[in-house]
Amino acid sequence: MKPSRLEAFSDGVFAVAITLLVFNLKVPAIASGNLGKALGHDWPSYFAYVISFLSIGICWVNHHSIFDRVAMADRELLFANLGLLLGIVSIPFSTSLAATWYNQGSNARWAITIYCGIWVYTSAMFILVIRHLMSHEHLCAEVKGVTLKSLLRKGYLGIFIYFVATIVAAFLPIEAFIICFILAFYYVVGVQQEAV
Amino acid sequence: MKPSRLEAFSDGVFAVAITLLVFNLKVPAIASGNLGKALGHDWPSYFAYVISFLSIGICWVNHHSIFDRVAMADRELLFANLGLLLGIVSIPFSTSLAATWYNQGSNARWAITIYCGIWVYTSAMFILVIRHLMSHEHLCAEVKGVTLKSLLRKGYLGIFIYFVATIVAAFLPIEAFIICFILAFYYVVGVQQEAV
Amino acid sequence: MKPSRLEAFSDGVFAVAITLLVFNLKVPAIASGNLGKALGHDWPSYFAYVISFLSIGICWVNHHSIFDRVAMADRELLFANLGLLLGIVSIPFSTSLAATWYNQGSNARWAITIYCGIWVYTSAMFILVIRHLMSHEHLCAEVKGVTLKSLLRKGYLGIFIYFVATIVAAFLPIEAFIICFILAFYYVVGVQQEAV
Amino acid sequence: MKPSRLEAFSDGVFAVAITLLVFNLKVPAIASGNLGKALGHDWPSYFAYVISFLSIGICWVNHHSIFDRVAMADRELLFANLGLLLGIVSIPFSTSLAATWYNQGSNARWAITIYCGIWVYTSAMFILVIRHLMSHEHLCAEVKGVTLKSLLRKGYLGIFIYFVATIVAAFLPIEAFIICFILAFYYVVGVQQEAV
Repeated sequence: MKPSRLEAFSDGVFAVAITLLVFNLKVPAIASGNLGKALGHDWPSYFAYVISFLSIGICWVNHHSIFDRVAMADRELLFANLGLLLGIVSIPFSTSLAATWYNQGSNARWAITIYCGIWVYTSAMFILVIRHLMSHEHLCAEVKGVTLKSLLRKGYLGIFIYFVATIVAAFLPIEAFIICFILAFYYVVGVQQEAV
Repeated sequence: MKPSRLEAFSDGVFAVAITLLVFNLKVPAIASGNLGKALGHDWPSYFAYVISFLSIGICWVNHHSIFDRVAMADRELLFANLGLLLGIVSIPFSTSLAATWYNQGSNARWAITIYCGIWVYTSAMFILVIRHLMSHEHLCAEVKGVTLKSLLRKGYLGIFIYFVATIVAAFLPIEAFIICFILAFYYVVGVQQEAV
Repeated sequence: MKPSRLEAFSDGVFAVAITLLVFNLKVPAIASGNLGKALGHDWPSYFAYVISFLSIGICWVNHHSIFDRVAMADRELLFANLGLLLGIVSIPFSTSLAATWYNQGSNARWAITIYCGIWVYTSAMFILVIRHLMSHEHLCAEVKGVTLKSLLRKGYLGIFIYFVATIVAAFLPIEAFIICFILAFYYVVGVQQEAV
Repeated sequence: MKPSRLEAFSDGVFAVAITLLVFNLKVPAIASGNLGKALGHDWPSYFAYVISFLSIGICWVNHHSIFDRVAMADRELLFANLGLLLGIVSIPFSTSLAATWYNQGSNARWAITIYCGIWVYTSAMFILVIRHLMSHEHLCAEVKGVTLKSLLRKGYLGIFIYFVATIVAAFLPIEAFIICFILAFYYVVGVQQEAV
């Protein structure tokens, strides 16, 4: 099977998931108070929105990089990709969870642990997809640019850091969230320099 | 008419429907209690989310397999496909219904019966699409791989099992839901082996 | 400009709009009563859902037919198409309005009048798009099959009937809604026969 | 990298964002009162809906114009485009904010300032994308029609007027909103004439 519809479907899911993040931005339900203050109070929603938007965006760029070198898709790849999309589609939920509970003691630990855990799962699915491609060379096209190997290396780095963040989240939720933010920021900047 | 826009539109609908499932995941509306407990209490939502995600994913893979062998689309095919999409788009609703009512006596029977019934309808539309293609050979392209016949066989298996599940749901809702889960699981694994 | 991205964007909007109709299907918010009864009580939601799904589907099929004969897009066509999509995107709202108020006296008149009125607007935009194409022949490709003229004729039939329905809705809302249903049904069946 | 998937993903995000605007249209939650009056009371929602729909539509047309002349995408372009999409995806939120608070004194100032501010950000990202393309000629294809330079000029005009509107919004929110409306209207009409 040709990968074009696989890409179209994945692009659709990425596009919808990244746009659904906007539901984390709620018009403050205040009756008559100060809107500026109410919006300021909601800053973690906006912060989480931007981080998750960037992170899904990075995943999309990486998905793009991976499938650029796919010449044919077998059904195993379709299902591995579905597993990956399951992780992506869960991000608006976990973002909402993290933004709602980030500052409430033990609940914050639950929320951020789940947030980081879903990223661990998503990274694992990325690695699964890349490894499946590497062990089935007939599925791959030869393309210049970033290699599957370097993408795999990035995948291992990602899963390691998200795993650490998941552990940290059980004790210091805010700090774990900041680790996620630094990772996203590093990817954007690191990736930029690579391209130069 | 060429089937490319038909595929693009269908991919779009599949992508949105599968992503809307995420609205079944709600941030628990507790004021200050234990978040972990509240999330644990909501496990059927997560379970139903994963089953429905997998099931829609399988439908997409099968839709992909069918339309890979379509060379031309007539208007009858467009409307049969619309009927199929009507079923797919209803899944987030029936999933939500099943996840909300699964453990409440007679209401559970209603909810799971509807959940299974929508799958019966969707399977029937799949069969309609495949049979329309088989009886209009000029619409088909010759492609290697899974044949329309084997897809039709799978369609009949699916509709039979979902029909049984619908009957069972009127008496034993949880068991009917488990049948749906086993069917989805069987398809993923069975399909994987076929590809090897 | 080539029309491929115009089609992709339109397909995306159609796909999202048709899927958002599912938000008209709400899990009944009853505490413990009879779910079957509550669902039965909501039948107009389901009825309106199916009519609107079919109607948007027909619009998509017609949009498909029109843009199949577009070889180039100018900016006027882009904006006329945007105007058309504005109508399509409003359907989930007008459907929700109609389903909520259909049986409440003077409010029903408002709701169904708006429902039909948005269809009048959408039909008008269809006619605008077709007429723009007919008067700018350099934008058109020669394709066999349904002609722009016959699509225009259908457009005039549609706008006439929806206009009548809008007037009727100010006095007999339910009857106006049934006119919309018959029109959608006629299009599906009529279109089917044409294809045979 | 080829820009086709970049376009597909962007089209998806535009399509979802423009369709999510419909959530600004709410069925009035009145128990039994006069629906016509309630709908009339909500006119700013409908007005904001149409302005934002037109504005996102114009952005899509411009995005289309820009990427028509892209032959290759580097990773910097991918991220600049992501930044642009972040602005687009935020519009349904800022529209909702503006429509809810437009007539409530100091809160209106906050709401409309944010509404205009997000347009300043989006215009800035458009300029960033165009400038990146102009300084990396190997990414560009030669195409007839509107040039990048004239698109850049329009971008500077847009950011200037939205910036003025943001300042005005801090004192006269309604007037600032009207500036946005006139700008959108000017673009549609101006663009039409250019095409003739």
